[in-house]
Amino acid sequence: MTGATRNSDKWVLVTGGAGYIGSHAVAELIDSGYKCVVVDNFSNSCYEPIARLQVLSKTEIPFFKVDLMDGPALEKVFEQYKIDSVIHFAGLKAVGESTKIPLTYYHNNITGTVVLLETMKKFGTYKLVFSSSATVYGDATRFPDMIPIPEECPTGPTNPYGKTKLAIEEILEDLHTSDPEKWRFAVLRYFNPIGAHPSGLIGEDPLGIPNNLLPSMAQVAVKRREKLFVFGNDYNSRDGTPIRDYIHVVDLAKGHIAALKYLDQVNDNQGLYRAWNLGSGTGSTVLEVYKAFCQTCSIDLPYEIVGRRAGDVLNLTAKPDRATKELKWSTHFKVADACADLWNWTTNNPFGYQLLGVVDTFFGTPNEYESRLVTIGRGSGFEVSLSNLGASIVDLKVDGKSVTLSLANESEYLDDRNPYLGATVGRYANRLRGGKFSIAGAEYQLDLNESGAAVHSSSSSYHKRHFLGPLVINPSKNRYTAKFVLLDTNTQFPGDVLTKVTYEIDVQAKELTIEYEGELLSGEATIMNLTNHTYFNLNTFQDTGYDGTNVKILSDQVVEVDSKGCATGKITKVPDVSALTLAKNGPQFDTCFVTGSKPSIDTRKNSLKTVLQAYHPESGVKLTISTTEPSFQFYTKGPGFLEEYGERLGFCCEPGRFIDAANISEWKSAVTLTKEEVYGSKISYKFD
Amino acid sequence: MTGATRNSDKWVLVTGGAGYIGSHAVAELIDSGYKCVVVDNFSNSCYEPIARLQVLSKTEIPFFKVDLMDGPALEKVFEQYKIDSVIHFAGLKAVGESTKIPLTYYHNNITGTVVLLETMKKFGTYKLVFSSSATVYGDATRFPDMIPIPEECPTGPTNPYGKTKLAIEEILEDLHTSDPEKWRFAVLRYFNPIGAHPSGLIGEDPLGIPNNLLPSMAQVAVKRREKLFVFGNDYNSRDGTPIRDYIHVVDLAKGHIAALKYLDQVNDNQGLYRAWNLGSGTGSTVLEVYKAFCQTCSIDLPYEIVGRRAGDVLNLTAKPDRATKELKWSTHFKVADACADLWNWTTNNPFGYQLLGVVDTFFGTPNEYESRLVTIGRGSGFEVSLSNLGASIVDLKVDGKSVTLSLANESEYLDDRNPYLGATVGRYANRLRGGKFSIAGAEYQLDLNESGAAVHSSSSSYHKRHFLGPLVINPSKNRYTAKFVLLDTNTQFPGDVLTKVTYEIDVQAKELTIEYEGELLSGEATIMNLTNHTYFNLNTFQDTGYDGTNVKILSDQVVEVDSKGCATGKITKVPDVSALTLAKNGPQFDTCFVTGSKPSIDTRKNSLKTVLQAYHPESGVKLTISTTEPSFQFYTKGPGFLEEYGERLGFCCEPGRFIDAANISEWKSAVTLTKEEVYGSKISYKFD
Repeated sequence: MTGATRNSDKWVLVTGGAGYIGSHAVAELIDSGYKCVVVDNFSNSCYEPIARLQVLSKTEIPFFKVDLMDGPALEKVFEQYKIDSVIHFAGLKAVGESTKIPLTYYHNNITGTVVLLETMKKFGTYKLVFSSSATVYGDATRFPDMIPIPEECPTGPTNPYGKTKLAIEEILEDLHTSDPEKWRFAVLRYFNPIGAHPSGLIGEDPLGIPNNLLPSMAQVAVKRREKLFVFGNDYNSRDGTPIRDYIHVVDLAKGHIAALKYLDQVNDNQGLYRAWNLGSGTGSTVLEVYKAFCQTCSIDLPYEIVGRRAGDVLNLTAKPDRATKELKWSTHFKVADACADLWNWTTNNPFGYQLLGVVDTFFGTPNEYESRLVTIGRGSGFEVSLSNLGASIVDLKVDGKSVTLSLANESEYLDDRNPYLGATVGRYANRLRGGKFSIAGAEYQLDLNESGAAVHSSSSSYHKRHFLGPLVINPSKNRYTAKFVLLDTNTQFPGDVLTKVTYEIDVQAKELTIEYEGELLSGEATIMNLTNHTYFNLNTFQDTGYDGTNVKILSDQVVEVDSKGCATGKITKVPDVSALTLAKNGPQFDTCFVTGSKPSIDTRKNSLKTVLQAYHPESGVKLTISTTEPSFQFYTKGPGFLEEYGERLGFCCEPGRFIDAANISEWKSAVTLTKEEVYGSKISYKFD
Repeated sequence: MTGATRNSDKWVLVTGGAGYIGSHAVAELIDSGYKCVVVDNFSNSCYEPIARLQVLSKTEIPFFKVDLMDGPALEKVFEQYKIDSVIHFAGLKAVGESTKIPLTYYHNNITGTVVLLETMKKFGTYKLVFSSSATVYGDATRFPDMIPIPEECPTGPTNPYGKTKLAIEEILEDLHTSDPEKWRFAVLRYFNPIGAHPSGLIGEDPLGIPNNLLPSMAQVAVKRREKLFVFGNDYNSRDGTPIRDYIHVVDLAKGHIAALKYLDQVNDNQGLYRAWNLGSGTGSTVLEVYKAFCQTCSIDLPYEIVGRRAGDVLNLTAKPDRATKELKWSTHFKVADACADLWNWTTNNPFGYQLLGVVDTFFGTPNEYESRLVTIGRGSGFEVSLSNLGASIVDLKVDGKSVTLSLANESEYLDDRNPYLGATVGRYANRLRGGKFSIAGAEYQLDLNESGAAVHSSSSSYHKRHFLGPLVINPSKNRYTAKFVLLDTNTQFPGDVLTKVTYEIDVQAKELTIEYEGELLSGEATIMNLTNHTYFNLNTFQDTGYDGTNVKILSDQVVEVDSKGCATGKITKVPDVSALTLAKNGPQFDTCFVTGSKPSIDTRKNSLKTVLQAYHPESGVKLTISTTEPSFQFYTKGPGFLEEYGERLGFCCEPGRFIDAANISEWKSAVTLTKEEVYGSKISYKFD
């Protein structure tokens, strides 16, 4: 992201944006056209929802791991992004815990907010939407006529958590009073948020034992917990259990957009401090919600009635009229919708964001959350490490040993001598004669790499681009998908393109499948050819070379090239290459073999065809490469780069369209992507 | 202070102990036998009251400049001292200011308290007395029957200051609830503290424009401010002005001792959270207090009735019954007493702790507040710099130029090669044959410095001891006194001694008078001989030597000494020394001249007698030394120390008792201090 973008646009800072409500608000903000910067200290969350939201929304979401109590760290965010307004979710939120460690609650919630406000003031940011809670009302049944609860209901929180929320409301009110023309504060008092994003990709993922009804039921449903505890059935309600106002988290998230718009519409030099209830106005008992959820998942969940919980009250139902009238906001979803979305989230993510055998670390430069490294299959016999820099395969381990060449850190991957190691290659892989091509009558000239050609897109190459994501899911046992997205805009190519790279990993079958997809977002047409540039070395590094690797190429035709390595337009037959043995001092290849599959812009309609088999007798590792593509570049000349690694040799098999197809009229349609089409292809690496 | 003392005793940590109420509480705590450590960030105070309290109480008060929001700094205090309980005064306290900068109030008061509590928890300190305020009640007149205000009155503060106090009360209550057996909290809700310490040495010294009635009146009385503003005379009271419950600050301070004792008496494993009003129970109107103060100072202070102040209410009178019953505490002083004490404080300190021409800095090792340096007369033609290390004269400047030798910093003064430069010398100055003496039939042996004698008390020497204070006051124009106190205990001498050194400085007359006083605190008797060891150099450092100084010694008798420099018991006549000219290569002196004044344990009954005059023709500076003492050591041999200063020469004139008097039976009574007596002497340096 460029400095100009960061400073010229208006950004919404979302504190606690990796949390349950925060992440849903980020989704709605992006959906409504806002640009979001997220800060979170991960005290009860993780980066995963942000990565997922980036892929889901196809939008970069700058993220900073910042504790709000760390003023200097927060200031750095404000220095980098011109923050127009803040939605402040960050805070500890467990009622029970707050009674046990009140100091921690007061320190985090109050000091965190005060530091945030001080920082906002310093940078001239005066709009804030605050995540408050109906807890500030305490037991509204102590008054004769305060159910449903209006905003005028006197406050009286009964636990430290609620007191911190009320204290913060008062701080905001006092601050507004101190400088009433500047500050604009919207205080949103939430009732009981439930449910999850309809995508099934983000939802509530409490650390430890959940405190709330819905996550507890969900965990019982997936057998993470034995049974549900219902705290008291001797309340004066229709079934004896307490009444709460449950609100779908997406409705709640939309309330923040409404509040933000309200703040934006306040006249200049006219501040605001105002509180709104965000609730449905309809109360449900615990047992009613229990029944709705059981119906959704078609399971009679075991439950036990136990004693009342200290501090629980009979009825907390919102009177949401003020929000309806002033914010033009009301709830759309019902409890049943929330149950369905929760169940969708739960079944797709039975352990929340945590996936068995998936670990992530960060390359560490300069904002580590731009530079992710995810390893899937840790502890299994097949381990795939993917970086969002170039959506690259950083490592493939078979039975614990690496079979690909890799580098140590992101700066080495960004080194100009890096020969696309493991990277996604695009927008146009392989050679392009003179770096030239024409589309819709217009001529284009790319920068040149060498000897008068543009190779692998030259300066527009994907291998140095940060893809969004990955979105990692575990749709069934032993199977994972990791999805990356790139907004490929402002390059030397015509048109903006959305590129998706999806890795499917089957750790039991030891198979990695890559699916490429490209869509034109603007312009009439562009050229496209995507592949992966992994260097394989199957001797599992007992030697740094590939000597002794047996390779069987299932093709006897190649794309003929001239002295510059560019296509002449002819396909020619070659001698038998079905029993090669690679050797550093043997014959070398840089050859575009033809697979026989039909070329087209989307080859995914072709079936996967095995095109190359490789086997190293010492390690016993066998690799079978299949693809839907019409050709593949077989390359044995590399890489011999970065002296500190010595001479490490790997071979490449890069399935794709015919070399230089953009400049050969009969082949050109297979690399020309128009608005009506989708680019597509698949590659599979299978190990035995 | 030794590590053992710090860790074995139980200390009370007083936060904000340099402030108005805090400093009075420290005075009462010490008076009640508590040992206090004080922390303060000086945001609205200064070190001066602590220095004064040390001299007043003759007690060391360890001080740390710490902001409570700085957890690590606070932890260092808890690491050094075993803190048994905390009295927590620190906090911002101006109602009006709090409405203008609420964030600052919330941050300082709440975060400061939370960090303090976290630190206490970490170090296992669970007792705290909290400085709350009647402000937490808000307008108690909103209820029909809440005047006088009982602790049960519902709270409802109307400004950020009051809200921070209430929020802290709630934090304490929640913390107690979270661990009810451990924490013991006493919340003291103050009504309107007024007055000052009866000593006139400590009192209220608000920075900027005072917010409260009494300091405002005091400033009008001493003409720092033109007139008093009375905010509203249209209240429903006997004279139309609001009613408040004014309480003498000493009464208030005693309330803290009562609360601390109450906390101490709570049974083991039984915590406490309880609030008490500290008020008199009697309300006075603003005009009643005005009249009382006018009567006290016999001035009709000008005043103007202006509009009501936002947030002011009619009546805030305490119902102090709970404190009376449970804490056995009630007020003793009346408003008139407080007015008298305030007037005493104000007239003695018209500009509070700030004295014209007095500056202080710190030597800076290792806790800078143990190592003070005060300069008096800055900007006048006579400037005296005094250090509490050795109660030393660090510098004397005549017309802006130094006339004494000095060192750069405390570590140089602590260097063993430092020849007592400017220091108070004691407990026994000058030579003692063999380091031996006998008192009440017992023999004593001191460590020896050189050639078989103890000089200037050897290892027990005062020049490396930190005196308490100084207490600097400005009793009349151009005149200052700076008083130091030393608890001279646990040395090789018999008995504990309290030594007082009082410097009187007349900046107009360019005269510095030193008065020594010694009292035996324990034991039957000891020996004592005090003097000052300044090295004079009157050529104002145009040369580093004293060559050319004309010296006139007004004596023709000396104490005869043997080859070891110790007295033979004879007084002998010497040739005329009334017209010496000092020269580095000329004759040198280390001679005890006899003044003719009568020796005794307290020579202050003698009149000051001029004993030496010195004059340097180049600088024109003339020094006249007078004393009440029977002799003086004239010394020209030094110092020639610390290579980095080169050869700087000064001469000394050290008035005192006859050399080695303790070992000469006829002279011994003049150096023998018994319980019934007071040691005393005076020296004067006058410059022309």
